Amino acid sequence: MKLRVDLLPHGGYLDTVLVVDILRATTTAVAYLERGAAALLLTSSPEAALALRDVTGPDGEMTRNERYLLGGERGGLPMPGFDFGNSPVEASGQNFTGREVVMNTTNGTGAAHVAAQSGKHVLLASLVNAHAAARRARAMAVEEIAIVCSGTDERVSLEDVYAAGVLAEYLLAMGEFTVDDGARIALTIRRNLGNPLEALSSSGHGVHLERLGLGADVRWAARISESTVVPTLDRSVDVPGALRFTGS
Amino acid sequence: MKLRVDLLPHGGYLDTVLVVDILRATTTAVAYLERGAAALLLTSSPEAALALRDVTGPDGEMTRNERYLLGGERGGLPMPGFDFGNSPVEASGQNFTGREVVMNTTNGTGAAHVAAQSGKHVLLASLVNAHAAARRARAMAVEEIAIVCSGTDERVSLEDVYAAGVLAEYLLAMGEFTVDDGARIALTIRRNLGNPLEALSSSGHGVHLERLGLGADVRWAARISESTVVPTLDRSVDVPGALRFTGS
Repeated sequence: MKLRVDLLPHGGYLDTVLVVDILRATTTAVAYLERGAAALLLTSSPEAALALRDVTGPDGEMTRNERYLLGGERGGLPMPGFDFGNSPVEASGQNFTGREVVMNTTNGTGAAHVAAQSGKHVLLASLVNAHAAARRARAMAVEEIAIVCSGTDERVSLEDVYAAGVLAEYLLAMGEFTVDDGARIALTIRRNLGNPLEALSSSGHGVHLERLGLGADVRWAARISESTVVPTLDRSVDVPGALRFTGS
Repeated sequence: MKLRVDLLPHGGYLDTVLVVDILRATTTAVAYLERGAAALLLTSSPEAALALRDVTGPDGEMTRNERYLLGGERGGLPMPGFDFGNSPVEASGQNFTGREVVMNTTNGTGAAHVAAQSGKHVLLASLVNAHAAARRARAMAVEEIAIVCSGTDERVSLEDVYAAGVLAEYLLAMGEFTVDDGARIALTIRRNLGNPLEALSSSGHGVHLERLGLGADVRWAARISESTVVPTLDRSVDVPGALRFTGS
C-alpha cells in the first residue's frame, strides 16, 4: 500500500483521500455531524452555498429552504448571509438535527473538491477524529491512501502538515506502506514539533485566529481522537454544485 | 527582516529570492559558472533554448551560434538536441570559458521564472554554495528573503526542503528574522533528518537519479558550501525568452 502526503492539494488521486484543514473546516465538519447534522454540503463558492438555501419562486420572491443552514468564512471571518462562521466551538453549542449544513471556506472546501475530482473515497480528517479517520481510510483503500493538506491561500500551513503526520503515524501502525517525500516531511514535523496545541498555536493561521479572538477554536482543534465521526463523501445523492458528506 | 520559505513556487516575491532545486538544476548552475561559463540563460521551455542556439538564416539554412551550449533534462534524462544533461559531475569535467550555457530543466528553471516575475534580486542556491548564497541574500535584502523550493512535478520534494532548512539556519545565524510556517517546516526537516547525503539519497528524486545511474550527482549535490559562486539574475542584458544569471 502507498501512503502519499500532498502538502498542498495537487490532484490525480485514484483511491482513498483524507482531506485535512484542521484550522478549521475539517474540525468544524466533525462538530456539525456530532451535533446531529444529517449531511454536509461542501460548495465550491459562497454563491453556490447561498443558491442552495435561498430559492427564488416564480413570483420573484425569495424563500428560504429551512433544511439548509450555511456555515463558512473568508480569512477566518464569517460571510454575509451565512448563518454560522466556521467555528467548531460555535457548532458544538448548536443542535443541527434534521438540518444539512452547507459549507464554504477559504481552503478546505476547495481541497475537498480537488480530492473528489478523481478520488474513489474522500474523507474529512482532523486531529479530533484522527484515529477513526485513519482506520476508515485503511479499511477502504486498495492501493493508495493520500493525505491532502489544504494549506492557507495556496501556501503550506504547519498545522495541516502536523495533522498529516499524526494520521500517517496511525496508518503506519496499522500496516506496511511505501511512503513519499511528503509523508516523510509530515512524520518528521509531527515527531519533532511538540504537542498538538504547541504546534497549532504557533502556526501562522493559529496566531491569526487567536488575534481574531478565536483561540478557543485552536484549542478545540488540538484535541486528538475525541470523536469517531468521519465525514465521508456520499455520491448516492446528487446535489448541484456541492459535495455531500455524511457521518456514516 | 522576514524569512519566507515556499515549499513550492508561489509567486508574489517582492525583495530577495533564493531559488532552490538542488537535484540538480541549481547545483549544476554553480558547476557551469565554476568551470568558466560567462553566463547562464534559463529559458522557460526547451524550444526557447534551442531557438537561442540554432539560428535559421535568410537562405533557410540553420547555423549554430557557437557562443551557446545547451544543458537540460526531462525526468532526469538529457533532451534531444541538447549538448549536456543536467549533471554537475558532467559539468565539472568541462571547460566553459567564453561560452554561455542555456539551461532548461523540469522544475528549477520554471521556479526561477516565477521568482523573477516580481522578485527584485534572484539568486540560485544549493547546498554546494549555501554559505555564499545566504550571505549574498542577507546583504541584498531590505525587508524579506524568500527561499523558493522548486519541488518535483508540482509536488514538494524533500531534498529542496532540506536545503531550504540549511539556508535558513545560516540566515538565522546572521541576524533576527520573523519566520513563517514554511521556514519552520524546513528548519525542522534540516535539524532532524540526518546528514545531507542521507537526506538526499533517501528522497524520492534522489532514489530516481540513483536508478538512472546518476548517483554521483546526488553525492556531488550533498556537499555543503564548497563553492562561493552564487548565480545572480542580471537584468542589464536582455535575452529574449531567457533569464540571464552571472556569477558576480
